[in-house]
Amino acid sequence: MYRDRIRLSYLLEKVTTAAEAAKLIKDGMTVGMSGFTRAGEAKAVPKALAELAKTSPRKISLVTGASLGNDLDKQLTESGALARRMPFQVDNTLRKAINDGKVMFIDQHLSETVEQMRSHQIKVPDIAIIEAVAITEEGYIVPSTSVGNSASFATQAPEVIIEINMAHNANLEGLHDIYIPANRPHRGPVPLINVDDRIGTPYIQIDPAKIVAIVISETPDSPSTVTPPDHETQAIADNLIAFFKKEVEAGRLTNSLLPLQAGIGSIANAVMCGLINSPFHDLTMYSEVLQDSTFELIDAGKMTFASGCSMTLSSGCGERVFGNMEKYKDKLVLRPQEISNLPEIVRRLGIIGINTALEFDIYGNVNSTHVGGTKMMNGIGGSGDFARNAHTAIFVTKSIAKGGAISSVVPMVSHVDHNEHDVDVLVTEIGLADLRGLAPRERARAIIDNCVHPDFRDELNDYFERACAKGGHTPHILREALQWHINLEETGSMLVKK
Amino acid sequence: MYRDRIRLSYLLEKVTTAAEAAKLIKDGMTVGMSGFTRAGEAKAVPKALAELAKTSPRKISLVTGASLGNDLDKQLTESGALARRMPFQVDNTLRKAINDGKVMFIDQHLSETVEQMRSHQIKVPDIAIIEAVAITEEGYIVPSTSVGNSASFATQAPEVIIEINMAHNANLEGLHDIYIPANRPHRGPVPLINVDDRIGTPYIQIDPAKIVAIVISETPDSPSTVTPPDHETQAIADNLIAFFKKEVEAGRLTNSLLPLQAGIGSIANAVMCGLINSPFHDLTMYSEVLQDSTFELIDAGKMTFASGCSMTLSSGCGERVFGNMEKYKDKLVLRPQEISNLPEIVRRLGIIGINTALEFDIYGNVNSTHVGGTKMMNGIGGSGDFARNAHTAIFVTKSIAKGGAISSVVPMVSHVDHNEHDVDVLVTEIGLADLRGLAPRERARAIIDNCVHPDFRDELNDYFERACAKGGHTPHILREALQWHINLEETGSMLVKK
Repeated sequence: MYRDRIRLSYLLEKVTTAAEAAKLIKDGMTVGMSGFTRAGEAKAVPKALAELAKTSPRKISLVTGASLGNDLDKQLTESGALARRMPFQVDNTLRKAINDGKVMFIDQHLSETVEQMRSHQIKVPDIAIIEAVAITEEGYIVPSTSVGNSASFATQAPEVIIEINMAHNANLEGLHDIYIPANRPHRGPVPLINVDDRIGTPYIQIDPAKIVAIVISETPDSPSTVTPPDHETQAIADNLIAFFKKEVEAGRLTNSLLPLQAGIGSIANAVMCGLINSPFHDLTMYSEVLQDSTFELIDAGKMTFASGCSMTLSSGCGERVFGNMEKYKDKLVLRPQEISNLPEIVRRLGIIGINTALEFDIYGNVNSTHVGGTKMMNGIGGSGDFARNAHTAIFVTKSIAKGGAISSVVPMVSHVDHNEHDVDVLVTEIGLADLRGLAPRERARAIIDNCVHPDFRDELNDYFERACAKGGHTPHILREALQWHINLEETGSMLVKK
Repeated sequence: MYRDRIRLSYLLEKVTTAAEAAKLIKDGMTVGMSGFTRAGEAKAVPKALAELAKTSPRKISLVTGASLGNDLDKQLTESGALARRMPFQVDNTLRKAINDGKVMFIDQHLSETVEQMRSHQIKVPDIAIIEAVAITEEGYIVPSTSVGNSASFATQAPEVIIEINMAHNANLEGLHDIYIPANRPHRGPVPLINVDDRIGTPYIQIDPAKIVAIVISETPDSPSTVTPPDHETQAIADNLIAFFKKEVEAGRLTNSLLPLQAGIGSIANAVMCGLINSPFHDLTMYSEVLQDSTFELIDAGKMTFASGCSMTLSSGCGERVFGNMEKYKDKLVLRPQEISNLPEIVRRLGIIGINTALEFDIYGNVNSTHVGGTKMMNGIGGSGDFARNAHTAIFVTKSIAKGGAISSVVPMVSHVDHNEHDVDVLVTEIGLADLRGLAPRERARAIIDNCVHPDFRDELNDYFERACAKGGHTPHILREALQWHINLEETGSMLVKK
């Protein structure tokens, strides 16, 4: 019964329909909405907004934590309601609109959005829409399966709509730790020293007078679409685990490694699953998204604590976790993404960051976002927050794609998200290149010898050798550097048969 | 008299010649040496090492804070003593050897070198050579005009050679603040909250038993080669000051701005000089290198405090500052570069970072290092430490080079050091592009309209428009994207006359 979830009783008067609440969102507004990697997004109001916009056109700037579930980005795009979108997305329809230049997409490091709002360098939301499991006696907001940017949106926006989602178990309360850094220049250190430290409050503190509407919803989060490990992702995991073992032997890591971060997606999830049958123990995570693998590691007794800013689980894993929250609660915390991804903390804790590359080049520059240098896939997400400051910055990918038409290792990437300065280790199913302390020519040797699919190795060696003959710290032949991408665009395959 | 400078008397026995000390540096060693932007480098021992290597060949890995003065990199390169070099350099002879693939150069973010050593991800120095103005009663080291990486080198290396440089005024003592973060995973916050906080000790604490030799030198630092402002750099400064004024008007900054960081070099120095005749006051710096402009701002009563990790001054400014150290001492501090550049502090303080670009592209990706995508100029230096975490990340450059043969704004940069995610504002003498909150197509419009030299504007507009017609979030025509660089390589000019 939703009345139990709204514990400041006068707020019951604010309960209304999604359709009514959606009318509060006017043309030209900047809307800050909960939701991170398809978890904990407001569901009823944006759906109603998409309906409303069909008959009563309005265009908004939509800012979230990260991606939304329940096809919301699709519906909002189709209704024409999206003028601008930041900082991340994964939706096919929205992606097409972005690549057609119809929706302006601002692809940001996920720790930076609310920092830029706080200093008024980007627009503060006119209204926030936040999914919650409850409102406390004080009128504070208890978030649901993600924190994302919700705390700062709710704090900064002059008006707040709350969606109480009855599909979420009320016992999520207590899981969150909300800490918002002070405005600069009067900011102290963020006092988090251990992965399991709690430094804030279990709710988002706002003036309840800002709550302009409360909508009751019953739509669950979309389940994770992560696919189970396959032959290649298992090989990637094996290569990485062999590397960790060598690091332990060399005395650079202990058998508990260091706090782990893993990007969203099937490859990173498979790598984490690979740790279940490994000699490592008492593992911890300090990451963005907690996926199925996190809970498999906890259930296997391998992981003692996991800190994230959202939980994105498959149906089966979701039932197990959300149905037994008490079992997991002392091993979990959800924080604002600004804190889960904060460079200060990433460096202090010495995080091992594992993220997925779309492609990388022979010198170790990584493209995480742009297909063929032009088309946005999803966005950089938190990978840059972690890679720049990680103890060890690892990028993983399968060595080939599209049945061998595409090599994930190329002479020169068509777009750079992480450059040579930020990339320590590269892993494919073929092998692993440890780039630490290497100069570019040495990096190329390590990458070509260890990571490249055999079908592309001779061609890359040929390119590299001819480039070296031309000279330079980072040898390239500019006339050929992007040729594989051009071939792909023009012929559907990176290598043209001679 | 050098005996006054070695206050732990039994260490007087360690005084020897540079030639003898150089013999302690064996083939294959990793040598950690003081020196940052031609300030405070050990001078006598590396010079003697270069001599020694001519007759008794040895190859070392040389790690410093940043660049060296007194032609030391030249002499070491010519003697064949350098196998590897990190993390930064500015020497013509060494640059050629790097680009010829003869010296392996590892181009690093300047905050990361000693962090990677501390976690044994790169080799810890076998020996450290540190310039000092004194050794204390406890046997601790008082650095000279730079701190750079000296503190961590001296702490981590099993053996330390000290050069007491009598050319430096002994009253530099007290200027330094040495703080070294604890090993991970047991590290707390770095407790620096204000630009003028002192969080460490005025000397480098080491076990004096590690001091294997002391050499007395009298060679001064090389003076700064910064050139005075010219018409274009003055225009860049004017454009930036107009931007700051608008930020103050909008309430996003106060008239004291925020702590300023300025990269080394003539353009950044000119921009800082431009602040002398501005309405801003009570300015502070939290930067790497303190240049002439810092002291001109202090002398003009415009700047209240400057924190750096080295001082690189022209002869005239050096005489004024070092001859009147007492006047400046309460307005200055020199820190380890790991602290001056620490992402944690850069973000906490909300620094305005001003760095020089070699070139940038229409989407705001910046190349700081590679000429034509292949040839190393100097290195990324600290620009990445600052830009990624700055309150406002600003890059400056003149719009054209080589008498108009080169446009500093290109369709696609030939190498990416700072990508679209990290670049807020671009400035040339033509104007300023404020990229905050803009999508790539909007960034391109702002950059082409505001920063490009008129001789190149039509061509860039033509490229951009045709790329947009092709589509994509970041529209490019891959067949043409690098053509300007290819033209330059093949014809000496980016645009080929039709």
